[in-house]
Amino acid sequence: MTTDPTWAALSEHWQTLSDLGGVNSLLGWDQSTFLPPAAAPGRARQMALVSRLQHERATDAGYGRLLDEAQARRDLSPQQERTLAVARREFEEATRFPGEFVAAFTQHVGESYSAWTQARPENDFARMVPYLDKTLELSLQAAAYFPEFSDPMDYFIDQSDEGMTAEVVDGVFRDLRAALVPLVEAVTAAPAPRTDFLARAYPAEVQLRVGQEIALDYGYDVSRGRQDLTPHPFMTRLGAQDVRITTRVKEHDLSEALYSTLHETGHALYEQGVAGELLDTPLGGGVSSGVHESQSRLWENLVGRSRAFWSAYFGKFKGAFPQQLSDVSEDEMYRAVNAVSRSLIRTDADELTYNLHVITRYGLERELLSGRLAVRDLAEAWHAAYQTNLGLRAPDDTDGALQDVHWFGGGIGGAFQGYTLGNVLSAQFFEAAQRANPGVQADIARGEFGALHGWLRENVYAPGRRFTPAELIQRATGGPLSVEPYLRYLRGKYGELYGVPVN
Amino acid sequence: MTTDPTWAALSEHWQTLSDLGGVNSLLGWDQSTFLPPAAAPGRARQMALVSRLQHERATDAGYGRLLDEAQARRDLSPQQERTLAVARREFEEATRFPGEFVAAFTQHVGESYSAWTQARPENDFARMVPYLDKTLELSLQAAAYFPEFSDPMDYFIDQSDEGMTAEVVDGVFRDLRAALVPLVEAVTAAPAPRTDFLARAYPAEVQLRVGQEIALDYGYDVSRGRQDLTPHPFMTRLGAQDVRITTRVKEHDLSEALYSTLHETGHALYEQGVAGELLDTPLGGGVSSGVHESQSRLWENLVGRSRAFWSAYFGKFKGAFPQQLSDVSEDEMYRAVNAVSRSLIRTDADELTYNLHVITRYGLERELLSGRLAVRDLAEAWHAAYQTNLGLRAPDDTDGALQDVHWFGGGIGGAFQGYTLGNVLSAQFFEAAQRANPGVQADIARGEFGALHGWLRENVYAPGRRFTPAELIQRATGGPLSVEPYLRYLRGKYGELYGVPVN
Repeated sequence: MTTDPTWAALSEHWQTLSDLGGVNSLLGWDQSTFLPPAAAPGRARQMALVSRLQHERATDAGYGRLLDEAQARRDLSPQQERTLAVARREFEEATRFPGEFVAAFTQHVGESYSAWTQARPENDFARMVPYLDKTLELSLQAAAYFPEFSDPMDYFIDQSDEGMTAEVVDGVFRDLRAALVPLVEAVTAAPAPRTDFLARAYPAEVQLRVGQEIALDYGYDVSRGRQDLTPHPFMTRLGAQDVRITTRVKEHDLSEALYSTLHETGHALYEQGVAGELLDTPLGGGVSSGVHESQSRLWENLVGRSRAFWSAYFGKFKGAFPQQLSDVSEDEMYRAVNAVSRSLIRTDADELTYNLHVITRYGLERELLSGRLAVRDLAEAWHAAYQTNLGLRAPDDTDGALQDVHWFGGGIGGAFQGYTLGNVLSAQFFEAAQRANPGVQADIARGEFGALHGWLRENVYAPGRRFTPAELIQRATGGPLSVEPYLRYLRGKYGELYGVPVN
Repeated sequence: MTTDPTWAALSEHWQTLSDLGGVNSLLGWDQSTFLPPAAAPGRARQMALVSRLQHERATDAGYGRLLDEAQARRDLSPQQERTLAVARREFEEATRFPGEFVAAFTQHVGESYSAWTQARPENDFARMVPYLDKTLELSLQAAAYFPEFSDPMDYFIDQSDEGMTAEVVDGVFRDLRAALVPLVEAVTAAPAPRTDFLARAYPAEVQLRVGQEIALDYGYDVSRGRQDLTPHPFMTRLGAQDVRITTRVKEHDLSEALYSTLHETGHALYEQGVAGELLDTPLGGGVSSGVHESQSRLWENLVGRSRAFWSAYFGKFKGAFPQQLSDVSEDEMYRAVNAVSRSLIRTDADELTYNLHVITRYGLERELLSGRLAVRDLAEAWHAAYQTNLGLRAPDDTDGALQDVHWFGGGIGGAFQGYTLGNVLSAQFFEAAQRANPGVQADIARGEFGALHGWLRENVYAPGRRFTPAELIQRATGGPLSVEPYLRYLRGKYGELYGVPVN
């Protein structure tokens, strides 16, 4: 029915929704990159306005009738069925929220984000309590519009990872924790590798140039994207042919800009790889936050922290920073970027301990949403949970409850589990890619990513939201979600690196 | 009636119009600064969409009824009367255009601009002919919606300079030309000053830093603005507290970045100086293109190219560029930035010949709009007119008909006369400011701009569109528009500089 007038009207409507989404993404991108400080309240109002316009169109009764009409047809292709299913899912989600609720939430989030950018450096958690209280209230109100989910957390998880439940996540996190705790124990008891040289002075502009060159090697297309600096790196789609990333750079931390860049590049490769015919339709984007994060993690960690990667790129770094790296070997570099230590900052954490940061936040979200934890007690609860899960306590709230943008620039619930689901999936996809292309590791060692990128584009990126996450995983890897490839990867890599026995 | 529900509803509507205007300005700002090349068509579509949304609201029948209601009231303050008059003027203008016409025009202009950014460096005027043909057609169509103007040019002039007519402009331009031709003749016959050192190598980042420091001295508030690089400099308001400028920099031209920056800073000081209570209402912006340009020209030329300015800033430039300026005196610098020569590029032209560039374009616009000149003959007509007015012929169309963004990123008609009206007004305002503050020149010589900026803010900026242009000029200067102060300024300055007799 592609030449059908109903389908044509739907396509035009989806185009408008996509254009408004791009406009709102630009407002957000500029807010994070270049907005003058005094303009923040006005920008929040502009974003609330565009969100309201999006909401009006997303909930338009005529659009609903078009969806009804199309779904009643019997001549739909499987792709059209799925397009309509995704559109229906979003229509349901949009129509349950009144326009004023969406506008109020967006306005509040803009103001909260703006306050957080000041409160965090000032270690002023108290300032954020009224904002977070309102965020929690609005988040629970959002979930209450979906009474078919008995637990608000199920609603939030399904929203970002279609078909997933808190029960499944609880189970995955339990298995992971059980395997990770002894592994972290063994690894942190072994002698630590040398990392001193990572903190030498590396000029910011050279770091940025090298990172960008590797992003281009990976396949990031800057005719359809660009990179800028923000306090918190992100990837955003501003249009069908406009997928931007941001990074941050620290002169005395060689890994900060590099791995931020490779992480966001992974997200961008996914978005840039979605098939052109799907763009500006409900299927034109990543399928879930877990699958999205699998791609940032795959390119950041499974590729970017591999021995093969450093075999390809150590020479480039030596060339860019000859004095700083004069006494450093390739093997030392490889070991340094894979150093394991219990630390306070999620985004700086190594692969092994990273998931413990996520499990901590996921647990706090469950407590907040259930009402067992009050916002005013969150800062202390954060410290207590870190003590339990990582044996650490942050010296302040800047690196404690104020650490991540998520709760301050969005809602509470479902913000974090996708990261660890992404880690799990990154290994599952990477194993499948290597089964299909046994030369992947040898390619990486030559700075060649065509076969890997090609396999991922075909099996993960191009389909967009053409399949459910579970279907996509099954089609790409031949099996359902499984923690085994990830545990095999971690045990193999860290067992060898630290010379510790693994089972 | 400020607490009146009608007024409250109008205010809310004006806020929405202002917010949508800011969103569209952001889309345009990003298009010129950072947009990835492949994203241009999608951006044009986004801008067309937001323009359509603006147009819908600007022409909303309910809004029209609110205006009717309010204008029927007898308890209006003079400021409310003027607010409604400006709103009515814009409502009339918006309602005469069908929504599809506005969207088509905006989309076309986006595509034309994008094509021009490639055609200009490639000297490919032929490529732009179909674009310009359509632009001319759309421009005439626009004017045809206003049959009360018998000449399309009157409509376009009134649109940007409320109350002004082609007849008045013709007269001003005739008087100016009569006075300028002998003055240019005498000055270009005199020995030329030394300018060689302006073309030495000045590192771009230092030029930008120095320019920005002077912009701050002038009073540009970067908590409510910022500066970026674009091929064609501009000022844009993205929100009540967000007034941005752009500049361009050439390593081998010390005056390019400096005077672009000071020019756009003048525009920005005007927009940043509009009284807070007027922002987000119909009165919250510059009153006409002539008055706007008077401020860019005042700060660029009457201040920035004055002997007093160089007395204040020559030391800063010597400090920033000690080697490049080692053999240059303050007097030589002052003479160099005021060198007069017949040249090809309007934006590079000196004060004396600048108006001949404008008069040329104004004449071509009148020819195109009257149908006496076809677009396909424009490139040659351009060369012929330059021969007549400036005794020069450009070697190509890059510096000929493709030179300015105006016809390629907007309509044809009324785009240029405001520049020369601005020059005329700049001297008229500057004389008035000096009458009120006789110490202005001495202040400038110390890098002090508070009194001048304060007078302009109070008499020109703060009123926004509170008065008509003619009223504003009368109130600020005590008389109507007059070319005499400008001619006094030019004759005094250039007579002294070149040692030529003036009458």
